[in-house]
Amino acid sequence: MEMGVIGLGGMGSGMAANLLKAGHKVVVWNRSPGPVEALTAQGAIAAASPKDAFQGEATVTMLADDQAVRDVVLESGALDAARTGLVHVVSATISVALAQELEKLHADRGLGYVAAPVLGRPDVAEQGQLNVLAAGDAAAMAKVQPLLDVIGKRTWRVGDAPHQANVAKLQVNFMIAAAIETMAEAFTVAEKSGVDPAFMYELITETLFAAPAYKTYGQFIVDQQFAPAKFKLKLGLKDIRLALAAGEAVDAPAPLAALLRDNFIDAMAHGGADLDWAGLATVARRRAGL
Amino acid sequence: MEMGVIGLGGMGSGMAANLLKAGHKVVVWNRSPGPVEALTAQGAIAAASPKDAFQGEATVTMLADDQAVRDVVLESGALDAARTGLVHVVSATISVALAQELEKLHADRGLGYVAAPVLGRPDVAEQGQLNVLAAGDAAAMAKVQPLLDVIGKRTWRVGDAPHQANVAKLQVNFMIAAAIETMAEAFTVAEKSGVDPAFMYELITETLFAAPAYKTYGQFIVDQQFAPAKFKLKLGLKDIRLALAAGEAVDAPAPLAALLRDNFIDAMAHGGADLDWAGLATVARRRAGL
Amino acid sequence: MEMGVIGLGGMGSGMAANLLKAGHKVVVWNRSPGPVEALTAQGAIAAASPKDAFQGEATVTMLADDQAVRDVVLESGALDAARTGLVHVVSATISVALAQELEKLHADRGLGYVAAPVLGRPDVAEQGQLNVLAAGDAAAMAKVQPLLDVIGKRTWRVGDAPHQANVAKLQVNFMIAAAIETMAEAFTVAEKSGVDPAFMYELITETLFAAPAYKTYGQFIVDQQFAPAKFKLKLGLKDIRLALAAGEAVDAPAPLAALLRDNFIDAMAHGGADLDWAGLATVARRRAGL
Amino acid sequence: MEMGVIGLGGMGSGMAANLLKAGHKVVVWNRSPGPVEALTAQGAIAAASPKDAFQGEATVTMLADDQAVRDVVLESGALDAARTGLVHVVSATISVALAQELEKLHADRGLGYVAAPVLGRPDVAEQGQLNVLAAGDAAAMAKVQPLLDVIGKRTWRVGDAPHQANVAKLQVNFMIAAAIETMAEAFTVAEKSGVDPAFMYELITETLFAAPAYKTYGQFIVDQQFAPAKFKLKLGLKDIRLALAAGEAVDAPAPLAALLRDNFIDAMAHGGADLDWAGLATVARRRAGL
Repeated sequence: MEMGVIGLGGMGSGMAANLLKAGHKVVVWNRSPGPVEALTAQGAIAAASPKDAFQGEATVTMLADDQAVRDVVLESGALDAARTGLVHVVSATISVALAQELEKLHADRGLGYVAAPVLGRPDVAEQGQLNVLAAGDAAAMAKVQPLLDVIGKRTWRVGDAPHQANVAKLQVNFMIAAAIETMAEAFTVAEKSGVDPAFMYELITETLFAAPAYKTYGQFIVDQQFAPAKFKLKLGLKDIRLALAAGEAVDAPAPLAALLRDNFIDAMAHGGADLDWAGLATVARRRAGL
Repeated sequence: MEMGVIGLGGMGSGMAANLLKAGHKVVVWNRSPGPVEALTAQGAIAAASPKDAFQGEATVTMLADDQAVRDVVLESGALDAARTGLVHVVSATISVALAQELEKLHADRGLGYVAAPVLGRPDVAEQGQLNVLAAGDAAAMAKVQPLLDVIGKRTWRVGDAPHQANVAKLQVNFMIAAAIETMAEAFTVAEKSGVDPAFMYELITETLFAAPAYKTYGQFIVDQQFAPAKFKLKLGLKDIRLALAAGEAVDAPAPLAALLRDNFIDAMAHGGADLDWAGLATVARRRAGL
Repeated sequence: MEMGVIGLGGMGSGMAANLLKAGHKVVVWNRSPGPVEALTAQGAIAAASPKDAFQGEATVTMLADDQAVRDVVLESGALDAARTGLVHVVSATISVALAQELEKLHADRGLGYVAAPVLGRPDVAEQGQLNVLAAGDAAAMAKVQPLLDVIGKRTWRVGDAPHQANVAKLQVNFMIAAAIETMAEAFTVAEKSGVDPAFMYELITETLFAAPAYKTYGQFIVDQQFAPAKFKLKLGLKDIRLALAAGEAVDAPAPLAALLRDNFIDAMAHGGADLDWAGLATVARRRAGL
Repeated sequence: MEMGVIGLGGMGSGMAANLLKAGHKVVVWNRSPGPVEALTAQGAIAAASPKDAFQGEATVTMLADDQAVRDVVLESGALDAARTGLVHVVSATISVALAQELEKLHADRGLGYVAAPVLGRPDVAEQGQLNVLAAGDAAAMAKVQPLLDVIGKRTWRVGDAPHQANVAKLQVNFMIAAAIETMAEAFTVAEKSGVDPAFMYELITETLFAAPAYKTYGQFIVDQQFAPAKFKLKLGLKDIRLALAAGEAVDAPAPLAALLRDNFIDAMAHGGADLDWAGLATVARRRAGL
């Protein structure tokens, strides 16, 4: 398939590389040139502008946030110039409000729109083992399913309305942050009571909480090691803010998400913006005087 | 070993039965006679009073709460009448404050004291597969380790001070309730956004949250099925109250536990006292107008 | 002085009428024609467009929210067409982010900008007795001070940067909502304990809380009378959202504001959008099963 | 009237002195002898034990907390030895649970029981200008009303069940702490936005929040002056704990009280136990990185 990939950070580069390996013709664009060169060396075609990457059958965009999507896809005129019938796969974790705006913008232009945020870090993207949370109408989904099969190990079909995939992704990120906060509080009370957090970690991850979210982030907390960041705390705050907005949009209170928001801000106020988001756990310790 | 078992609810009966099977001489006592008869049929000796069950080398008490421990162990005079050198294994989930009081009371009387709350439900107790969180001095621990090996599949040695086992147990229960609340909020936002909670359940329990706490309680939430209770909501509230007190005792804020407390109370105010504690999830739904 | 007034709701109409009475030449504009006619009968000149109301020495805009300011002032081209040297007095309760954006837009066009949100309801505006929270540079402030003296009984000079007036206004609104929540919780516990909320109301408003915020909103709560709304609950939620954003912008956690946000959303989910914002108090009662 | 006064701290001494001045025969007892001597110099009679101060027509106890009441009134045997028909006026801010226990203990012994916690500091007690929150049956109230008239400027009759006065008092203290927290958050956002907290203080206390609670505690916050304490932070935490328990006893969630609890604990963890309870405001500043 002839297609475009826009946004070549760690995630996007891994996805593009796998699409190339699978035999697709891939036109790539990125703000900075480095990742473009790496991919053209693997057979990709460099686009001169975002518009040029919207001339195939499908385009995958993997951008940082709402603003990047607005700049690169909307302000650039790329969407207006897109080839008729193209399906746009938006993999960024964006706000539900922007996703709903994009639904209309694509429909008005006769373009397909599939929201496909992913679970997994760059190394998982490189291996093509992401979990893809996809939503969109059946026709659009059918066209891009082969691409999603290359990108991920499994496509989770969330619903027919693209923004629903963003809702699901934001809730999963909320759940991860909630698990971090939960461990932070429990380990802090334990530590101040003379019980080793490393003991608590082993206890829970070998019994009721034997799951990746607890094993991965709990280890960071036990080690108090939050740099270098795999996912930055300031991005964690952004996602919680989006999760809160998603709840507010459907009149759903979210007191635990609200608590996470305040603790992320506390961490920001103490220089934690660029820590891994497990650094949220510094807050419970500091508040307890540790 | 000659020993006593006091408190023959679902948990205590299972433990006593396993101790009998393992060849120990077990003297049992319970407030109501039913469970006593069932165990004497299996070879146990019925005690006429709590005192009579404190005349062996060890006594396991598996009582409901602080008040039950005060009534049966302290007010009854059983501790005062206990055989010198006996080790008292307290498996109830009691307050850290009472555990610390018991530390002194046992030391003053030359008695051993091991706190040994457990993770697991009655069916797990029956199978001798509990996780035992044990704390106490080395000598006392050594004496009762054979009993703990019968009761559980693994003994987790929390520390030397018995009350530390209660801290650990309360934090684990806090973590379970936090997971319930997390799912409740996430599934509610999803549902109001048109995303099926059953989908969210499958998504998380097959990826980042593939752990017993999420699988077990998440299923209850998806099914909105909270009766009959395996662990009653009002007992969940009790444990959160004790967890908060444990944090307060060491000057550790616990805002997530505090949030759980309020939601448990909300559930109580809406008739949820005897639901399973996963019924905590009714609160997020009701607050969102579902 | 020759001036414009845009936005003739209850607040803006009262302000315009007082400016007319004080002898100013007032050009008025409003989306709907009714209030315009009422004011031209008092001597005002009807503008054909927002632009026409930006041709005097000063223009006061009293619009509903960020979107209204964007539509009427920015999208209409009014700011681009404004008379050089004009000072724009923005009295709406808008976001700090928009206020900061307006600071730049006015500076770029050589226009003065004074943010002047007010404390008080329409009846107070009609009497010219508002408290005006004003911020802007000294020159701009000096030019419009005579107008502010007509509008309000006192001008509170918040600072030199206009957005600071919005920060102050949002925090005052946050404080009012916090007082409502405080009474809601206290009166609910009292009521469920058999103590009459009306008694609590009298007790506090005649002793430690003898202040307008408690007297006004406490009476609504005691009477459980939240309609017709003087200030709608959905606007209260908007202001809390803006207050949270103002805190987040300067890395300041705001857990109490966050709690208010969730309770406002709870009220929204139960049909409370158009109640007076004291209807926030329905949430504590409902959660307690009353 | 012949009467006893027990507990001669700043509050109790002021009350006893006024009762003496009013011509009553006052028997006093205190753990430490200093205050006793000061009062005998004013005509009081020193009791040899708490029992001796329970032999008149009424006894006022003004003790620090639940434990002090248990020690001095119950463990001492004073209640068992009290003169038949005596009315016991308990002015301490005690738990609702203890108040309910005292209701039964007094009824069983044929003693009257009036709960009469007060609003006001020692200087107000000295002037006999306290606000007295009194609850008890009509007969007991009638007997002690002359005493309450001496102690306070106004008696607020809360209800017939003594514990209701404790509910009311605890809610008032909750409201004060909520006002402190409210100002702490608002002033912190203001300060980080470049708006002087002293300005905010003046703005609110001259408009919507022109009330003693805001004026008194707001000044402490503006000055960041929390020592010497008029009412210690650790006692503020105690009262919030009791307020939460009072809510829990009637199934009323209290999320704002819960938030206060955590912030008080945060302050405790940072050495604030003996600060004035307005020191709660240090938490919002510290969390914001100030």
